[in-house]
Amino acid sequence: MAGDTGARNGRRRPTVADVAREAGVSVATAGRALGNYGRVRDDLRERVQEAAARLGYEPNVVARSMRSGGTRSIGFVAADIANPYFAAAMRGVCDVAHEEGYEAILFNVDDRLDVERNAIKVLLEKQIDGIVVSPISVTDMGHLRRAQERGVPVVLLDRTSARMNADSVVIDNEAAAYGAMAHLLELGHRRVGLVASVVPHEGPELVVREDTGRLGVRGAVRPSIDRIRGYLAALDAYDAVSARELVRFTSLDAVRYAEAEADALLMLAEPPTAVFAADNVTTQGVFTAARKRGVKIPTEVSLVGFDDLDWTALVDPPVTVVAQSPMDMGRTAAERLFRRIRGEDRPGARIVLPTRLEVRSSTAPL
Amino acid sequence: MAGDTGARNGRRRPTVADVAREAGVSVATAGRALGNYGRVRDDLRERVQEAAARLGYEPNVVARSMRSGGTRSIGFVAADIANPYFAAAMRGVCDVAHEEGYEAILFNVDDRLDVERNAIKVLLEKQIDGIVVSPISVTDMGHLRRAQERGVPVVLLDRTSARMNADSVVIDNEAAAYGAMAHLLELGHRRVGLVASVVPHEGPELVVREDTGRLGVRGAVRPSIDRIRGYLAALDAYDAVSARELVRFTSLDAVRYAEAEADALLMLAEPPTAVFAADNVTTQGVFTAARKRGVKIPTEVSLVGFDDLDWTALVDPPVTVVAQSPMDMGRTAAERLFRRIRGEDRPGARIVLPTRLEVRSSTAPL
Repeated sequence: MAGDTGARNGRRRPTVADVAREAGVSVATAGRALGNYGRVRDDLRERVQEAAARLGYEPNVVARSMRSGGTRSIGFVAADIANPYFAAAMRGVCDVAHEEGYEAILFNVDDRLDVERNAIKVLLEKQIDGIVVSPISVTDMGHLRRAQERGVPVVLLDRTSARMNADSVVIDNEAAAYGAMAHLLELGHRRVGLVASVVPHEGPELVVREDTGRLGVRGAVRPSIDRIRGYLAALDAYDAVSARELVRFTSLDAVRYAEAEADALLMLAEPPTAVFAADNVTTQGVFTAARKRGVKIPTEVSLVGFDDLDWTALVDPPVTVVAQSPMDMGRTAAERLFRRIRGEDRPGARIVLPTRLEVRSSTAPL
Repeated sequence: MAGDTGARNGRRRPTVADVAREAGVSVATAGRALGNYGRVRDDLRERVQEAAARLGYEPNVVARSMRSGGTRSIGFVAADIANPYFAAAMRGVCDVAHEEGYEAILFNVDDRLDVERNAIKVLLEKQIDGIVVSPISVTDMGHLRRAQERGVPVVLLDRTSARMNADSVVIDNEAAAYGAMAHLLELGHRRVGLVASVVPHEGPELVVREDTGRLGVRGAVRPSIDRIRGYLAALDAYDAVSARELVRFTSLDAVRYAEAEADALLMLAEPPTAVFAADNVTTQGVFTAARKRGVKIPTEVSLVGFDDLDWTALVDPPVTVVAQSPMDMGRTAAERLFRRIRGEDRPGARIVLPTRLEVRSSTAPL
């Protein structure tokens, strides 16, 4: 990006933030005045323009999109819009875009890398000003790097990758999973099952550690593997059962696959007394499997799920879940993107938003 | 559109369907061969091209998008992507787009007409090939007509309008509501409440009919008013109570507003013995209000909801609902759009997809 190159070449090129400071206005106001979008009071616009002239500010990406003339827009490339997580995130992205006088357009890539690649291609052709993406793969990101190289900022949502120098907005998945497990383990459970959705081709691999005989996990960094890590770390910390038969992987494609894995887990000769479902698809799968089998929650099995969807509070018993706020995550990602579009600072920030354990009635002491 | 003009001017211009018939291939294959997108076997492509030459076929819109060169894409303009109805419809639109070798891009307009207008503007600037839209307003549609005038086909989803000559994909909302009500009335209920989300500025107005003293409704044609009509027609047919105090309107903005209206209904001095919730937001509102007030479903109040969301089958009791298939609606709308993009026939079809009453345990005899 032009702004970064300037900064790297020695004397730092003035940024929108510098102009804002010089003019005594907020960065958002300076950005709007310099980018000529949204509403700015005339006197403030003048002050900003004078400050920009004094500092020798050269607009970069903002100028590019001013030259293109058309309506400004950002893209949101979501893995699967039918998953409520992404629908809520979209809401957050749209809200910020509208506040900034931009439109937000969405691509649903249906968990397919080829569709994601094509979506990025289309967004570049359509001269979009920036992209928020929850990438399907955390290893195959050439198409996203190419967008950056063409001056289109990219912010990663719900994923982080060592292969890209981009801002990312995530939660601490390992800590969130550890917290959910600690809740079950403090209640006395020692045989706790896990049902997690994974991406097969980058899939986490369970390994038995030679030193301890306990489970470990290997695979690319992504939310699912971090949650599996949190599950295993908690088992170790509380000296609970660490066994292959208690860990079930499924795909995000359909609840019925998750339900089948949950069913197999509940029907073990020695079933778990508690289950941690590591995402919203498996949470529904475990809940449904238990009900169909007549396994009572929480008297026969405790359940902690992930994601605070509407239904988790409506069912009987209401489900204890790890709650994240995808709308806040979408907002934050879009806010970062606009900082990048205005050339305000350098990419690479990793923003970790909080989660909380919403304790309801699906968990009980052993 | 060019194709229609040809047809209107007397001798019909050959369409893709004619070429397909001549070549002995499917319309989809002919469209792909003529439009030069997607995969077509070489021998079929040749047959199609020969047939096109024999018939004097002139590509119209397909040619336009071939000339533009870029990746082909269609737009889906959804009222609110956080509503699962639209998320599922998006899935259907995307699936068809990908089958046709197109990308689908989404605009979420957050129930705001100004955002919808801007979305259409952006889509035209971005040279999109066609638009599926669930319009916010059924009266203010100038921006959609302008898209058509610029040769960009428009298909209406979940709405129909006398003010536009466009295909629409809908359900029969009045009949669906009537069917839901008939179920309650056959169970003996005569005091049935309604909670419906409406659009305030086009809002339906309840009127007391002079001749009968019973309720009627006035307002622009849209799903909510059609469902209210179905509710009132069923009350009349079964000679049940028709009273203002039993009808509650709310907005789609938040479940808590629906919950407040439902609560007021349940707390009437003479409360209804059954409630029809006319959309998915009010269904959740009524269910939640009843639970918070300790009003037992179905022993104290029967409930029929609208839309078969995940949670309706997971809660206790599972909720009787009018089920529609938004994914099929999205698919069908996109299929119509591609017929229009290929210039296969003239717009104006109204496609009514079926609904079904999913009877579960939230309804019981009085």
